[in-house]
Amino acid sequence: MPYTAPTRDFMYLLDHVVNFETVTRTDAFAEATRDVCEAIVTEAGRVCEEVLAPLQRDGDTKPAFLENGVVRTTPGFAEAYRAIAEGGYIGMSAEPEFGGLGLPLAVTTTVNEMMSSACLALQLNPLMTQGQIEALENHASDELKALYLPKLISGEWCGTMNLTEPQAGSDVGALSTRAVPNDDGTYAVTGQKIYISWGDNDFTDNVCHLVLARLPDAAPGTRGISLFMVPKRLPDENGDAGVANDMKVVSLEEKMGLHGSPTCVMQYDGAKGWLVGGQNKGMAAMFTMMNNARLGVGVQGVGVAEGAYQHALAYALERKQGKADGTGTIVEHPDVRRMLTGMKADTMAARAIALSCAVAIDMSNATGDAEWTARAALLTPIAKAFGTETGIAVANEGVQVHGGMGFIEEMGAAQYLRDVRVTAIYEGTNGIQAMDLVGRKLSDGGEAAYRLLDEIEKDAEAARNGHGELAQAVWSAAEALRETTEWLVAQDEMQARFAGAVPYLKAFARVLGGHFHLRAALAEGTAGRRTALARFYIERLLPEHAGLLAHARAGAEGLYEMGVEDLAV
Amino acid sequence: MPYTAPTRDFMYLLDHVVNFETVTRTDAFAEATRDVCEAIVTEAGRVCEEVLAPLQRDGDTKPAFLENGVVRTTPGFAEAYRAIAEGGYIGMSAEPEFGGLGLPLAVTTTVNEMMSSACLALQLNPLMTQGQIEALENHASDELKALYLPKLISGEWCGTMNLTEPQAGSDVGALSTRAVPNDDGTYAVTGQKIYISWGDNDFTDNVCHLVLARLPDAAPGTRGISLFMVPKRLPDENGDAGVANDMKVVSLEEKMGLHGSPTCVMQYDGAKGWLVGGQNKGMAAMFTMMNNARLGVGVQGVGVAEGAYQHALAYALERKQGKADGTGTIVEHPDVRRMLTGMKADTMAARAIALSCAVAIDMSNATGDAEWTARAALLTPIAKAFGTETGIAVANEGVQVHGGMGFIEEMGAAQYLRDVRVTAIYEGTNGIQAMDLVGRKLSDGGEAAYRLLDEIEKDAEAARNGHGELAQAVWSAAEALRETTEWLVAQDEMQARFAGAVPYLKAFARVLGGHFHLRAALAEGTAGRRTALARFYIERLLPEHAGLLAHARAGAEGLYEMGVEDLAV
Repeated sequence: MPYTAPTRDFMYLLDHVVNFETVTRTDAFAEATRDVCEAIVTEAGRVCEEVLAPLQRDGDTKPAFLENGVVRTTPGFAEAYRAIAEGGYIGMSAEPEFGGLGLPLAVTTTVNEMMSSACLALQLNPLMTQGQIEALENHASDELKALYLPKLISGEWCGTMNLTEPQAGSDVGALSTRAVPNDDGTYAVTGQKIYISWGDNDFTDNVCHLVLARLPDAAPGTRGISLFMVPKRLPDENGDAGVANDMKVVSLEEKMGLHGSPTCVMQYDGAKGWLVGGQNKGMAAMFTMMNNARLGVGVQGVGVAEGAYQHALAYALERKQGKADGTGTIVEHPDVRRMLTGMKADTMAARAIALSCAVAIDMSNATGDAEWTARAALLTPIAKAFGTETGIAVANEGVQVHGGMGFIEEMGAAQYLRDVRVTAIYEGTNGIQAMDLVGRKLSDGGEAAYRLLDEIEKDAEAARNGHGELAQAVWSAAEALRETTEWLVAQDEMQARFAGAVPYLKAFARVLGGHFHLRAALAEGTAGRRTALARFYIERLLPEHAGLLAHARAGAEGLYEMGVEDLAV
Repeated sequence: MPYTAPTRDFMYLLDHVVNFETVTRTDAFAEATRDVCEAIVTEAGRVCEEVLAPLQRDGDTKPAFLENGVVRTTPGFAEAYRAIAEGGYIGMSAEPEFGGLGLPLAVTTTVNEMMSSACLALQLNPLMTQGQIEALENHASDELKALYLPKLISGEWCGTMNLTEPQAGSDVGALSTRAVPNDDGTYAVTGQKIYISWGDNDFTDNVCHLVLARLPDAAPGTRGISLFMVPKRLPDENGDAGVANDMKVVSLEEKMGLHGSPTCVMQYDGAKGWLVGGQNKGMAAMFTMMNNARLGVGVQGVGVAEGAYQHALAYALERKQGKADGTGTIVEHPDVRRMLTGMKADTMAARAIALSCAVAIDMSNATGDAEWTARAALLTPIAKAFGTETGIAVANEGVQVHGGMGFIEEMGAAQYLRDVRVTAIYEGTNGIQAMDLVGRKLSDGGEAAYRLLDEIEKDAEAARNGHGELAQAVWSAAEALRETTEWLVAQDEMQARFAGAVPYLKAFARVLGGHFHLRAALAEGTAGRRTALARFYIERLLPEHAGLLAHARAGAEGLYEMGVEDLAV
């Protein structure tokens, strides 16, 4: 599908909206000057436009399949993967010691977004590897690092994460895959894992599986889980992919979308694995990987939103309608204009949230500052859930802009919607994200949230001069969010928080979106396209926060007033 | 897919919420006593459960296909169609003179909903025929009526509507199919039509196409359009299907869903047709058909919502998670409970809106009363758009309830979403519905809307005793809707109304939902499942109306502040 990299938007956000400058001023990222970053984003954008985007439809129409136990991938994916690897886009933020570029995650985030817009099914592969790289950097032994990181960063090998089992999805603690110590310090891993994205392929020399499993006599639940590196091929004495490990791909799932990405059922039959992190410390290591991946998945949503938006806009600009002389196109129709502008406004909001989350992670990594760490932790579930919800909502609206053509697969609008739908589910469903937000992320008594709200209100105060109405609307929305946050923090019963967690998260994202749109408008002056977009968002979309907050405050009592028997027909 | 007919809910709504009693008290529907209707709904429910529901997945996995110019349908559809026809469900509301049952549309609406829940792809076939029957009843000559209506009502033949052409979708006036008079009073119809649902099948003796076309020298635009009956096979001297007419199915569309329903590209090559209604009066005749079909499509959305809800509930009741002893299921989780209760509450609201629209149509037909006619006209776009939006939103939430399994096609959750997506597009996109609401339907200066709001507020006043908070919330929401309605009516520039038409329609539906939930609670007393559901809806979902109304009032100015060039990347 045709795609234009929104490099100008990325740079505008980095320059004026999400305080990327702070990152470039740290010692850790001193070499990542603004102009270096722009050059990298520009070049990556070119690869996405020219190499990845033409493969988007093929991923759907020529999906991955299993042939004699081997996954065959969409024609062209192998070459495109090579272009991603050679561009250095897999290990952009990985440690230079092992071949990474050591760039801020904020920059990687822009590139991940562009790859997601251009070809989501393929992009999922390097995204998984990026998470694995980070998990190994933080938790693996030096030996494992030296062996695996260079190959993962270069893209010769790729990585997967193996959490889910048929009876253990969101409830990870229920997993039953076993890891029994061998005499040589390795482990024999046995069990079945499902929903393994890119569990195999035909274009990397090896596939490295990080597998959650239980040691013999491990405690039940999440406390008894350990993490293992289980490669498809065992490294030989030179560190290259050697003989096959005892595992296989049992089958591929037939999914609603993302057909270019093989979703595998994996069977491990005493496969040789190496412990990553300590015994029974698997969840901690996995969370490193998942936190990275959560932002990454949120960015997938943003990427699909951008892709679907551009696709719908192109159609609206071309589709003739309305004028007798045949010159009018549907982009002039108020409802089509409303849809497109809303899509663009929401995409901008979701993108800014993701980038500000990446900046917080960068600052946390660069400085170790607890406030930045808390900010990153607070923003991660919002970036994941709102990014993916935006991807779904925008792709859905993209179908609508196309009218009848939207339902015809050949057009491609439907594919965006089918592909992106899973992003609200994997890496922790959006419900899980929302519970994380109102549970763990407010377990500081709301401190991190209040600090962010202080910033939002301070910014709004400063914007009153020149953007009075918009500033007031954002300030009031932040204040309303603060009140509901206080209400949530005051609830001792977790159920009361959980009952409204999803609407609370959406309201939080709405307010953040208003905040970032206002900043974008401020930097522009008093008029211009970003101010017009901010006005659209703040006047028409931000008001949703009030209804969402009412829902969030309604609590658990009324919810359980409907008994299970009352839910029946 | 397993499905249980919600007969109890239908009867509760008919008895206590949508004033169906008024219909049974008219002379026209004197025989349709409440108990007769219940018996019919019960029996139809059994057919849907036992005959249609088992075919739902087959429609997706064994889709219709074109073989040597003939459409082959999903195995089992032919027999299920026969069951629908023999049950009398096609001509339920058709005139008894031609074999119809003459029942209120409210009753037909419940049956249409159940068929949609059980097997949407097949149900679309009789729905199209129902629209055609009504168009012929109102506009065809006695000769055409006598020839076609008995066969359509019995289901021996079925009907389609042919509006869209490649360059004429929402802009019907742009169509170019030609109809040239023959010497015998018939017409030779030539042109291509697209998106023809059930344009052909292999289980009825004939397929009757109502085709919009232009006479030679007709005026441009919608004023120059006429309607023609163009049967696949020309009736012979006995009125049976005779020789083939000059038309063919060119191809079937490959769609996002609804694969069991063949969507045809039809080619007419001088096909013989008969004028229905006067020359150049095609739009009026078509609107009769479309108005019926619009309610019918809204009901499709409600039906899919019910089906997807039941499917998700069954999964949530079965899926183990959380308790150490293995007895807990995810239905106990607050976020899953929130999703399911929200799905049920919205489905109830959408169903009540559809049934109240059907009641208004029945009253209009029975009494000719202008206020009922205006009420029906006002509610039709709301029933269509909110019903289908609810179908999409509930099916989407159903996918989410399933977690990872929701994305796996075998589960069936994804199919509901893929199938129902088109309902927001066909029979006039939901954007068109919303423009109809704020344009034509408020062209009475808002009279019909205000009359409805008066009723809502009066009901809420009466409910203050016993349901104080809920009543107050509904009253306030109605008042807010009234204010925005006044604002809309005061806008002379149509663009200002259109810019916020879709959020206005949604807000209207939200308020109507609150109204009907409150009525359901009132009839129950002060506690019980319907009161609990009403409380959920009114406390958690109704508050959305405020944000939507803010959007609706924002007008066109700010919308067009973003120029077309500002929408570009």
